[in-house]
Amino acid sequence: MSLLDRILAGDRLALARLLTQIENESPAGFEALSGLFPRTGQAHMVGITGAPGTGKSTLVNRLALELRTRTQARVAIVAVDPSSPFTGGAILGDRIRMRDLTGDPGIFIRSMASRGALGGLARTTAAVVDALDGAGYSWILIETVGAGQAEVEIARTAHTTLVIEAPGMGDDVQAIKAGILEAADVLVVNKADLPGADNAVRALQSSLELASAVPRVWDHHGRLEPVDATQEARVAWVPPVLKTVAALGEGIHEVVDAILNHRTYLETTGGRARRDRDRLSHEVHALLSDRLLAEFLDSHASADLGAALEKVFARQASPRQVVESLLAARR
Amino acid sequence: MSLLDRILAGDRLALARLLTQIENESPAGFEALSGLFPRTGQAHMVGITGAPGTGKSTLVNRLALELRTRTQARVAIVAVDPSSPFTGGAILGDRIRMRDLTGDPGIFIRSMASRGALGGLARTTAAVVDALDGAGYSWILIETVGAGQAEVEIARTAHTTLVIEAPGMGDDVQAIKAGILEAADVLVVNKADLPGADNAVRALQSSLELASAVPRVWDHHGRLEPVDATQEARVAWVPPVLKTVAALGEGIHEVVDAILNHRTYLETTGGRARRDRDRLSHEVHALLSDRLLAEFLDSHASADLGAALEKVFARQASPRQVVESLLAARR
Repeated sequence: MSLLDRILAGDRLALARLLTQIENESPAGFEALSGLFPRTGQAHMVGITGAPGTGKSTLVNRLALELRTRTQARVAIVAVDPSSPFTGGAILGDRIRMRDLTGDPGIFIRSMASRGALGGLARTTAAVVDALDGAGYSWILIETVGAGQAEVEIARTAHTTLVIEAPGMGDDVQAIKAGILEAADVLVVNKADLPGADNAVRALQSSLELASAVPRVWDHHGRLEPVDATQEARVAWVPPVLKTVAALGEGIHEVVDAILNHRTYLETTGGRARRDRDRLSHEVHALLSDRLLAEFLDSHASADLGAALEKVFARQASPRQVVESLLAARR
Repeated sequence: MSLLDRILAGDRLALARLLTQIENESPAGFEALSGLFPRTGQAHMVGITGAPGTGKSTLVNRLALELRTRTQARVAIVAVDPSSPFTGGAILGDRIRMRDLTGDPGIFIRSMASRGALGGLARTTAAVVDALDGAGYSWILIETVGAGQAEVEIARTAHTTLVIEAPGMGDDVQAIKAGILEAADVLVVNKADLPGADNAVRALQSSLELASAVPRVWDHHGRLEPVDATQEARVAWVPPVLKTVAALGEGIHEVVDAILNHRTYLETTGGRARRDRDRLSHEVHALLSDRLLAEFLDSHASADLGAALEKVFARQASPRQVVESLLAARR
């Protein structure tokens, strides 16, 4: 029985093995992924970002259980940690989470730490999410540690983006995150039993009002473009600001309601198809870029690269000048 | 008088104009930059990362003034905010900082917000830093908002990396940042007059001990490789953990001492040349990748890209499959 057949039969170990192959960029992994690809496009992907200390992982676990109970569908969690390129923390995280969610074969958890450059992680995450989609997981929760632009780029693979805050994270945190708020479909103030929760809700609502003045979307190249209102009625979705106490299970039902509402909203406005197309188009461009560079470095023209770098190191030519020369020499 | 001549004569407006041209990717800007490039390689670059709320900007302003006073050399600050791709916050930030540092023509400040994808910002930052180096700024302080991997990538352009913490940022923040600590040459606990400062120092020292077990460096492709001890005695530099109260100017002298010590250390061990080569090599690879993709998209082969994307959208072929087909068709 092939790895692909075993995955389609629901073999979790086979799926875990495929994801490892994808992370290791093995050809066998990409072949199996291409075999799964025709089955993709079914899952609803939920991106969850937020600073450390907001209780994000606890919330994600609760959401997974609630989605599983209410929809009876299979749920996958992909926890991405771009800020820890060095440590094996992801594995420890896996074990702690497995303990909370163990025993339900309908919930699958995968942690990913960065093994290389940032772009590489985003690409691998996209491939892992495709594999989980093709393997029949209807809900894919993509959790990223941190809330910088790296995390926003990864959250872009999602249909619905949740941004998690907690009270008392410092006033300037609110202001700094203005950019990320604009990417949010649902906002959650977790640890809402702490002092300052209502202030945090108000701060988020104010930020949202500022942000909604100029609604924007990502274009294919990862740049931000103003929304064409006729293209998608993005402006019609008002991101709710919800309070939770994830450790006690409070407010989880309402967050799942918001996710389900947003899914319906995307499906009825055509936004789902557009987000899928944006994501896949971005994936194709990124892969193309990787392959073109690898091809160039393998070609005879790259023999000149060493000499060109020496010229740059000696400040005889700028990086742009040697790149132009390398490309011209090849033609 | 050309823009380049005006910059070399110390005209700050001309320099600001060049930086804008670089940000806008104008050919004239890159031409002027190539003209400045032979003069680069003189500056010492200091990367400063830290979470929001650590008082980083105040500390950077103080360091700029102290470096200026002690070395009499010109100082530039480049403040990079990758987490705010949407807002014009950088400009507001500029004005607040200008007020603090105004009146000294030997200090130049530039804020940069992300205009596009993350890789683009890192590339533009590298070019801006090269321009400032060529224009005669001996100290370039590169401050990044946030402390995710995006910020680490940008801080990589520096010779000396400072990581700023503050007391009471939450216990898990320390653990999460393990990866970033390993990139730190100097650690600073700012706001050291707040309760918990000594705990923060101890937590950082523990993290450093963990991190130093396996010293690593970035290779040319942005991956992490274990250090070859014969290549650079990286393990011989023990990152100091210092306390400051930047708002009161306390501890700034000691941080500048640490920066000067690290500069001497790099110069005597050959580490400076190696870091410069890594940085420039990375810059050449990134530019090459950009140009190869642009060239492909301009070529006739890209006429097939639209059709290929439609196949992916219809789930008839995976992103990897269409990329292989596109490349094969071109040959």
